[in-house]
Amino acid sequence: AIQDLYPEDYANCYGCGRNNEQGLHLKSYWDGEESVCRHTPKPQYSGGFPGFVYGGMIASLIDCHGAGTAAAAKARESGEPLCRFVTASLKVDYLKPTPLGVELEVRGKVVEIKGRKVIVDLRLLAGETLCATGTTIMVQMPQLEQQK
Amino acid sequence: AIQDLYPEDYANCYGCGRNNEQGLHLKSYWDGEESVCRHTPKPQYSGGFPGFVYGGMIASLIDCHGAGTAAAAKARESGEPLCRFVTASLKVDYLKPTPLGVELEVRGKVVEIKGRKVIVDLRLLAGETLCATGTTIMVQMPQLEQQK
Repeated sequence: AIQDLYPEDYANCYGCGRNNEQGLHLKSYWDGEESVCRHTPKPQYSGGFPGFVYGGMIASLIDCHGAGTAAAAKARESGEPLCRFVTASLKVDYLKPTPLGVELEVRGKVVEIKGRKVIVDLRLLAGETLCATGTTIMVQMPQLEQQK
Repeated sequence: AIQDLYPEDYANCYGCGRNNEQGLHLKSYWDGEESVCRHTPKPQYSGGFPGFVYGGMIASLIDCHGAGTAAAAKARESGEPLCRFVTASLKVDYLKPTPLGVELEVRGKVVEIKGRKVIVDLRLLAGETLCATGTTIMVQMPQLEQQK
């Protein structure tokens, strides 16, 4: 997965860090020109009304998968090793309640790569149902910091 | 707290539901014309790099506090019992890394109340440092559904 290539010191994210023991361990992959992340939220991540996922989880899925997609897209374009990206801006539109207890699919599409900035559009699906859309602006962390 | 007034069936949110045993139990209050929510994220909610909060937690704080602020603002305006609001849209701008291990303060300001829609602007602070800003568009859930 893309997150397996994150520098060791940058792999502690609660959402997608392989070194976070209590985290969600989100994993992103290429699927043709799109990226994909599949995850089934645990029951505690309920929204206000039972049976649906809380908004913060949906934002987390879109955010972490956006960061992973940006890192992989930049590495693919530059031919250099994968660098960690951080979120500058996150926008989520909640279209329909997202059901709890089913596997969710987040699909990313790279809109623009411009220097250290990558814009990714994302869709969150439960089966055939489009539950949320998102746009993330991701920025590459300074290379020096990543080698600390 | 505002969330203590949520209808019983709508109090299960991982972020702010009093009935969610494993949740964060975020609490929002009025502070003059602004609303405020204070929370110290637990160590597991680390970002990729240790010592900072992951983006999904920041989005959750802004989202849940925005929903609470919208519900309280609408109830105050209408003079009717508090109704639950859900997120239509969430925008977060990450300005600076948010430190882990300190109390964070999220402050909300109601921008507009228009029928069932309330727009709330939010700021997330660590001490004096403005770490993130957000805008949420919240929509009141149908009253009938809330009485189920």
